[in-house]
Amino acid sequence: MTPFNDPEMEELMKIKEPYKKANRKYKAEDTIINIGDIHFGEGNFHVFSGPCSVESKEQITEVANRVKAAGATVLRGGAFKPRTSPYAFQGMAADGIELMLEAKRETGLPIVSEIMNIALLDLFADVDILQVGARNMQNFDLLKALGRSKKPILLKRGLANTIEELLMSAEYIMAGGNDNIILCERGIRTFETATRNTLDISAVPVLKKLTHLPVIVDPSHGCGKAELVEPMSLAALAAGADGLIIEVHNDPANALCDGPQSLTPDQFDTLMRDKIRPMSELMGKKLGA
Amino acid sequence: MTPFNDPEMEELMKIKEPYKKANRKYKAEDTIINIGDIHFGEGNFHVFSGPCSVESKEQITEVANRVKAAGATVLRGGAFKPRTSPYAFQGMAADGIELMLEAKRETGLPIVSEIMNIALLDLFADVDILQVGARNMQNFDLLKALGRSKKPILLKRGLANTIEELLMSAEYIMAGGNDNIILCERGIRTFETATRNTLDISAVPVLKKLTHLPVIVDPSHGCGKAELVEPMSLAALAAGADGLIIEVHNDPANALCDGPQSLTPDQFDTLMRDKIRPMSELMGKKLGA
Amino acid sequence: MTPFNDPEMEELMKIKEPYKKANRKYKAEDTIINIGDIHFGEGNFHVFSGPCSVESKEQITEVANRVKAAGATVLRGGAFKPRTSPYAFQGMAADGIELMLEAKRETGLPIVSEIMNIALLDLFADVDILQVGARNMQNFDLLKALGRSKKPILLKRGLANTIEELLMSAEYIMAGGNDNIILCERGIRTFETATRNTLDISAVPVLKKLTHLPVIVDPSHGCGKAELVEPMSLAALAAGADGLIIEVHNDPANALCDGPQSLTPDQFDTLMRDKIRPMSELMGKKLGA
Amino acid sequence: MTPFNDPEMEELMKIKEPYKKANRKYKAEDTIINIGDIHFGEGNFHVFSGPCSVESKEQITEVANRVKAAGATVLRGGAFKPRTSPYAFQGMAADGIELMLEAKRETGLPIVSEIMNIALLDLFADVDILQVGARNMQNFDLLKALGRSKKPILLKRGLANTIEELLMSAEYIMAGGNDNIILCERGIRTFETATRNTLDISAVPVLKKLTHLPVIVDPSHGCGKAELVEPMSLAALAAGADGLIIEVHNDPANALCDGPQSLTPDQFDTLMRDKIRPMSELMGKKLGA
Repeated sequence: MTPFNDPEMEELMKIKEPYKKANRKYKAEDTIINIGDIHFGEGNFHVFSGPCSVESKEQITEVANRVKAAGATVLRGGAFKPRTSPYAFQGMAADGIELMLEAKRETGLPIVSEIMNIALLDLFADVDILQVGARNMQNFDLLKALGRSKKPILLKRGLANTIEELLMSAEYIMAGGNDNIILCERGIRTFETATRNTLDISAVPVLKKLTHLPVIVDPSHGCGKAELVEPMSLAALAAGADGLIIEVHNDPANALCDGPQSLTPDQFDTLMRDKIRPMSELMGKKLGA
Repeated sequence: MTPFNDPEMEELMKIKEPYKKANRKYKAEDTIINIGDIHFGEGNFHVFSGPCSVESKEQITEVANRVKAAGATVLRGGAFKPRTSPYAFQGMAADGIELMLEAKRETGLPIVSEIMNIALLDLFADVDILQVGARNMQNFDLLKALGRSKKPILLKRGLANTIEELLMSAEYIMAGGNDNIILCERGIRTFETATRNTLDISAVPVLKKLTHLPVIVDPSHGCGKAELVEPMSLAALAAGADGLIIEVHNDPANALCDGPQSLTPDQFDTLMRDKIRPMSELMGKKLGA
Repeated sequence: MTPFNDPEMEELMKIKEPYKKANRKYKAEDTIINIGDIHFGEGNFHVFSGPCSVESKEQITEVANRVKAAGATVLRGGAFKPRTSPYAFQGMAADGIELMLEAKRETGLPIVSEIMNIALLDLFADVDILQVGARNMQNFDLLKALGRSKKPILLKRGLANTIEELLMSAEYIMAGGNDNIILCERGIRTFETATRNTLDISAVPVLKKLTHLPVIVDPSHGCGKAELVEPMSLAALAAGADGLIIEVHNDPANALCDGPQSLTPDQFDTLMRDKIRPMSELMGKKLGA
Repeated sequence: MTPFNDPEMEELMKIKEPYKKANRKYKAEDTIINIGDIHFGEGNFHVFSGPCSVESKEQITEVANRVKAAGATVLRGGAFKPRTSPYAFQGMAADGIELMLEAKRETGLPIVSEIMNIALLDLFADVDILQVGARNMQNFDLLKALGRSKKPILLKRGLANTIEELLMSAEYIMAGGNDNIILCERGIRTFETATRNTLDISAVPVLKKLTHLPVIVDPSHGCGKAELVEPMSLAALAAGADGLIIEVHNDPANALCDGPQSLTPDQFDTLMRDKIRPMSELMGKKLGA
């Protein structure tokens, strides 16, 4: 149906599985993704942390210093925010990216931020990891454009997307030539209303079997409640995840976005020291290496 | 949270409902959308029809002539196709748009086609209605850009999006200044596997109560089976929809996309004449006016 | 796996389809179910109506007379109520059945009521149709016991059950020797919160193709809102249903159960006369015969 | 609405929460359930294990001895099986219970088995824990009857039931006077097809907060694949569960029911020794006490 003038691609199309480059049958060993001194894969366990949205220089710098001290190895922070309502805070945009870069310079932490519009790719030149959010998991033009980039991509599962569809979206990026993809389970839509979404922990071992790409879990968006971040972080680690992405805010009660699911820096510190570190040791994973 | 320097917007923000411009409480009378000689609203009932994908000049022209003769008032046809797999047929792109325009010139039918990338907006200059597909319903940058356009928008409900979220996405377009929006129910994701999706017919009366915007239904994508198009078209009409969008292909068995859910031109002709016309009369709707 | 000493059953087991006796491939013609002078099938359309719960002699008698006058052919009324909370009104139990029988004697309408416990079967001796509620669709011991009865069964689809599972539950009853089954779509659980459940209208044509059993729709429980009963009743009829089950209460605001989804007798009268009658004529169905 | 002649109940009804006796607000300390020498609660962690169905004396005795040696403290085994198809193996019925009792006498392990029909309660006189299966979670007559028993109840969450509904079903049993309830998360229905169900691990911390009753997890039914039992068992333990229920079969390939999700005795032994024991120590739980 689709003719290729590329011998490697012709070879690939002979694989019957719907996803080919992302398929562990095609490449058995784990993909290792290098971001500065950080290595995904090789049995390491990484925690991404930071606020849902960048709000000010003070906020992002304080949070960055605190999460770094606690053991986080990547700083997260949204500058462009996908909000259900056009009247809700949409993020600081270019200014937010600039503040993230300042925090990066100050702490040395690599940074991850969501890109929603490929026209703004230049703005993300010094961002270490580009995040594709759940609502854009099947924004195929965005995926194709990121396939032409060489930057690591954090690809989040859509709210109603199957595990196979997540792998097909990774395949879009890989088919374009970019193999640096970190997959992220962040909760799916179900009838249950006690949690914001239903975090599908079983997606972790299913993905680890089907693909060689690293898999992390977002318990903050997955559950929508700060009190569930600890148990679900530990569940993700126990199920074999390669990392976590946890929201931390210096003042959750006054956060411009997603305060109810954010930990304070103190809570994050305790979680890392008393819970995640000992469990990652038990699981034979090296925390933040 | 979001400061506006616009008195109308300041007024709007006082409305407590999450969607404001789309809200029937704010504007009780139905929005009428004019496309050439066609008027949405005022008790008219319109059927959009055509192939899932434009495949050739012969195909689109033949289908266009047949569906026009049968009573369709808008020609649909995909040039840019959102496909789960990067290895599946992605549409004829610019050539597909050109063929749609030829079919428009030949038949006089206004045309609708999906736009996935705002960078390609110029290519759609002569397309009458821009479709936002289910996977892009929360591609907010796309919605904002379309708000600055004045073209009618066909906004499809996402596979896991609530009715309220659909209205919030319409609100994004309206907040930008474009009120010409047609909403489309096209099936949601559930546990049921007998149908491709579960077509939520109750979304029609719910939407008609909540908003003044016209609402149409896509039974082809909603069910994924040609044999279900007739009963579900009639159900949508009986539930109060303002129109339908039905896939028709000259050769469904060999269609490059979605053949199993496409009607033949003969089947469409029979459906329109023997079923949709008498039922629209019973419902007090004027077919294709 | 299961040895049968019954030649008919041995023959049946050779059919590969999971449901055999319920399968249209095994019996092409519609099953006709006779209840007094009423015939299901043969192109008839029946409306079951009455209150969610029997509350008093005055209530059930008044409602029975009103819905009969409006054209309903079966009186519904719950005596044993499956309630989520043990502290909610559980129905009038045996007294409720007695009041239903009085209303039957007064109006001549056959009656349907839910049975939740097979130990109470004797109490239902003069009830014309035994209802298996959504929560008991896979109460297999109940299904087996009803298979040994010869009474018509109204089998409701479970909230999270597939169409195939509904047919398998019908098969349980039929395997026991009772072929008098009316299937009922009454809404499934999804993420949508604007309606109580999502009424799966597409289940009607899917079931009509797969089985020879009659299929009715319950828009009252399916949507949970009185204002949606009219459009969804018409949608069900348009999609090919053989009947409806509609809740009518003389005083919805003070109903002990499900008031928000109940019509008044006047609303039901108007719905039957102005909407359901003309549409059943258009669909070529004979109302209440 | 419901008048009570019981002062304790009158007091109870003043609590505004929908579930009262099951509510941690009403009773802060964990409920401890004693079964022979085994204590649920007090920071213990129990693993229930055994085959899906009892198939023969040799099978159940062998499995019982093996799982006991590996550290399981309760033997599970189905005698009455709820099967979607009436033509599938329905269990050994009374003979199955008898074989479970023999295995109990031989190993000293307390036993749990599913009861689907209250008329058979006498048959379960020496069964230690009565299981209410997912399909019967809202079989309210069964719940009421079990409320009058004093036996410990293992109450499984229904496939489409919310956490609150699970607690309301527990409340039915408690309102009848039986407080000995163990709750079980066993997967919910979603659109995902890579797993049999989606195991909702977040239900564990949500339940532990809302109720004082113990909570266990069934990774076997929850995922439907043997390879997922290990990671999901560890995830459940890490999330705070009080126990697990794991299917073990001496010959999974030839099991009469649910073979694909069963571990072999060797696999179970390794899981307990190498994974569950060290993780329960890390979590500060005493395994099988």
